[in-house]
Amino acid sequence: MNKKIILFILVRLLAVESVIISVSGLVSVLYGEADYVYFFLSAGIALGIALLIYPFVNNTERNLGKREGYVVVSSVWVMFSAFGALPFYLSGAIPEYTNAFFETMSGFTTTGASILNDIESLSHGLLFWRSITQWLGGMGIIVMALAILPILGIGGMQLFVAEVPGPTPDKLHPRIKGTAKRLWGIYILLTVLEIILLYLGDMNLFDAINHSFTTMATGGYSTKQLSVAYYNSPYIEYVISVFMFLAGMNFTLSFFALHLKFKKIINNEEFRWYFFGTIGITIMITMFLMYHQGTALEKAFRDSLFQVVSILTTTGFATVDYMQWPSFVVVIIFLLMFVGGSAGSTGGGPKVMRILLMLKNSYFEFKRIMHPNAIIPVRINKKSVGPNIIANIQAFMVVYIIIFVVGTIFMSYVGLDLDTAMGAVIACLGNIGPGIAGVGPANNFASIPSLGKWLLSALMLVGRLELFTVLVLFTPHFWKK
Amino acid sequence: MNKKIILFILVRLLAVESVIISVSGLVSVLYGEADYVYFFLSAGIALGIALLIYPFVNNTERNLGKREGYVVVSSVWVMFSAFGALPFYLSGAIPEYTNAFFETMSGFTTTGASILNDIESLSHGLLFWRSITQWLGGMGIIVMALAILPILGIGGMQLFVAEVPGPTPDKLHPRIKGTAKRLWGIYILLTVLEIILLYLGDMNLFDAINHSFTTMATGGYSTKQLSVAYYNSPYIEYVISVFMFLAGMNFTLSFFALHLKFKKIINNEEFRWYFFGTIGITIMITMFLMYHQGTALEKAFRDSLFQVVSILTTTGFATVDYMQWPSFVVVIIFLLMFVGGSAGSTGGGPKVMRILLMLKNSYFEFKRIMHPNAIIPVRINKKSVGPNIIANIQAFMVVYIIIFVVGTIFMSYVGLDLDTAMGAVIACLGNIGPGIAGVGPANNFASIPSLGKWLLSALMLVGRLELFTVLVLFTPHFWKK
Repeated sequence: MNKKIILFILVRLLAVESVIISVSGLVSVLYGEADYVYFFLSAGIALGIALLIYPFVNNTERNLGKREGYVVVSSVWVMFSAFGALPFYLSGAIPEYTNAFFETMSGFTTTGASILNDIESLSHGLLFWRSITQWLGGMGIIVMALAILPILGIGGMQLFVAEVPGPTPDKLHPRIKGTAKRLWGIYILLTVLEIILLYLGDMNLFDAINHSFTTMATGGYSTKQLSVAYYNSPYIEYVISVFMFLAGMNFTLSFFALHLKFKKIINNEEFRWYFFGTIGITIMITMFLMYHQGTALEKAFRDSLFQVVSILTTTGFATVDYMQWPSFVVVIIFLLMFVGGSAGSTGGGPKVMRILLMLKNSYFEFKRIMHPNAIIPVRINKKSVGPNIIANIQAFMVVYIIIFVVGTIFMSYVGLDLDTAMGAVIACLGNIGPGIAGVGPANNFASIPSLGKWLLSALMLVGRLELFTVLVLFTPHFWKK
Repeated sequence: MNKKIILFILVRLLAVESVIISVSGLVSVLYGEADYVYFFLSAGIALGIALLIYPFVNNTERNLGKREGYVVVSSVWVMFSAFGALPFYLSGAIPEYTNAFFETMSGFTTTGASILNDIESLSHGLLFWRSITQWLGGMGIIVMALAILPILGIGGMQLFVAEVPGPTPDKLHPRIKGTAKRLWGIYILLTVLEIILLYLGDMNLFDAINHSFTTMATGGYSTKQLSVAYYNSPYIEYVISVFMFLAGMNFTLSFFALHLKFKKIINNEEFRWYFFGTIGITIMITMFLMYHQGTALEKAFRDSLFQVVSILTTTGFATVDYMQWPSFVVVIIFLLMFVGGSAGSTGGGPKVMRILLMLKNSYFEFKRIMHPNAIIPVRINKKSVGPNIIANIQAFMVVYIIIFVVGTIFMSYVGLDLDTAMGAVIACLGNIGPGIAGVGPANNFASIPSLGKWLLSALMLVGRLELFTVLVLFTPHFWKK
């Protein structure tokens, strides 16, 4: 294990974080808010530590192995959250460090679970910093999902590499750089487009920027306690619905769309399921709400669409409190939490692709029972998927469920009832934000005991990094020479 | 598909059922109850239909293929329940046929979920018939699990064949006969032993017989509305705890125990997990109850042991209403519902063996990620398990969860809240009996809408027959020539 290269990368990233904290401080300055000083203090602490360590690790070989890769990736999110919590904590906006860390980890992992009871009381600088943690987290995730994880061999993500444009050299560095450039371009483009569209609606520029940042990251932090419901604007709700959907798409497909290769999108099996699944479930809930609650068609459709897309993409914005909907709809929403966006999107959760492959493989098992000696491969996008990748994905799902179960036990141990415990765990593990019951969209995570908040913070990280990246660090064979 | 051999087997079994219904009628006669006439009427209908069909199917070849095997196995349970419901229905004890069918299917599948609000109002004949459906169901399951399913290649059950004593010829018939003889001997022996022990306690002979029948089947039907809590006797509770545990053990291991081959038991990995898991969880809940509710040691231990063993073995007897326990314990109990007894026991659920293999395999996946080219097999009882069996078991678990999820959606659609829907589905799919929330041990299934009862009846069957046996009949490739 080359510890120096790990620290070398980390301190450089810490310096970057310090710059972005400072930029958020400038927002406070711009709005004449007194708390800008805490931003510069936080940025100074981060930069100071980075500069202190840098000379000791600068003189290292510049190649990064697979094992070092796991450590870097897991550490970055923890480091960013630990330092990113400082502006909240030092300014006194969030007096407890546990809460500040939770809120920041929830930001960088694009989860959107909040402990804030009065979001509007925050300064513009802090609101901006809160939104930008998600936007940065989203940038990190795109690169993670489409460049780093496939190489590390995590959870079948190798499968999606074939679709990524550009060269595929063995070394991490050039590959990451090329992919990042292409896909960040789209990410930024879509963010700007959404800002313009929201600004054309009833939103002021500040809110438009913040909501666009957190939409594209499928993060879901809002500048309002009531979330998007605050604006009470169908136009805004439709715009955000569309952009949440785009953020939950494989960014490689958006890259193809930009190059007018629409056939590649239509031929993508995951996209077809994601698209028709979203439409199908939205229509089903629309009809159910019209029939059982007498909601008018357009309102029922808009509410369904927004909530379905928000949960499926793991964004977590809300325009209604779905816990007030009939049990059947609550169950559907709850189950959507176990799906998540497309692979290669900023969305969390197990992803449509994995669920799809699991379902296909299980269906094929029926064939295999009837014909035990036949070789019946699972196909996706007309290509057959190797048994190793299937095994990888199955193990991913099993571990996902184990974590969900153990997390639920733990949260019930700290005092939550079954539904709230399940809701809190999946909301964090799946990087969604709101859960069900006591952590539904009308509530937040403030009242959860500290011990529970630390566990949930860990779950956000584990979920965001596709489980194995983090968990492998805790196995003995990782550390064996 | 040789339909004649299927019908040939079915009508012979129907004749057997008719005899057993008559025997239950004799119990009514013995107690001077007027409803004996409905038993003989029901038996007559069954026998009449059997005799009508028999001449048309008698002249068939006596060999049974794999595909016919699936059809026979699935049909037997449905047929037994359809005719077995008649005594309840015709006597008016259960006025709706849906309820009578549900109660009987719950019997033959050894589930124990009941729609009865006043069990004590039933005649001795009906109570006996109710218990004997479970005892017969248990007999069926032992043979299914240890002789039929392994040959049909269902859900990794092949794995357990190696442990079954006796010859392993290719043809179904002789194998089933030999295994059945050996294991039914133990089943009957343990039943008799439990009857004696319960009778030595405060139980009358009738109750002792009934409870022993439903213990050994891990069924859980009681002759009392309050279940085992009615007797308020620590002795009875301990005796039943021990026999539930034995019934949840692989019967092949009991066979070894009878031949004093204790080393074979101790070396069995599934048994070790089953044993130490039961003890460990019992101690944990005992301590939690002592600490949080101030329950005295012996009472806390006895209540924990009984409830843990009852749920883990999928029996479903109750001595307390665990829904009144703290949320943490409810969560643990709820999760135990997703485990079930040992493979080759009368218990339902996915079984300890499958859960164990899933956990092992997932853990090994971490090794595989670090060493992608190494072949790292999963071992159980020091033998390595082939990838086909692992794939089979993983597909089983995926399908199990899919059914749980779809069932929960359906039950919420008919009007149940999330917890009750989840509880009802797992209680039936896992052949447990009581679930959580609205179908917890203090409640029953009476108030569930008819449509829901039919779905739950189907889930009992699907769960009891290890999913694939039934589900494969609904796939197009099963019916292809």
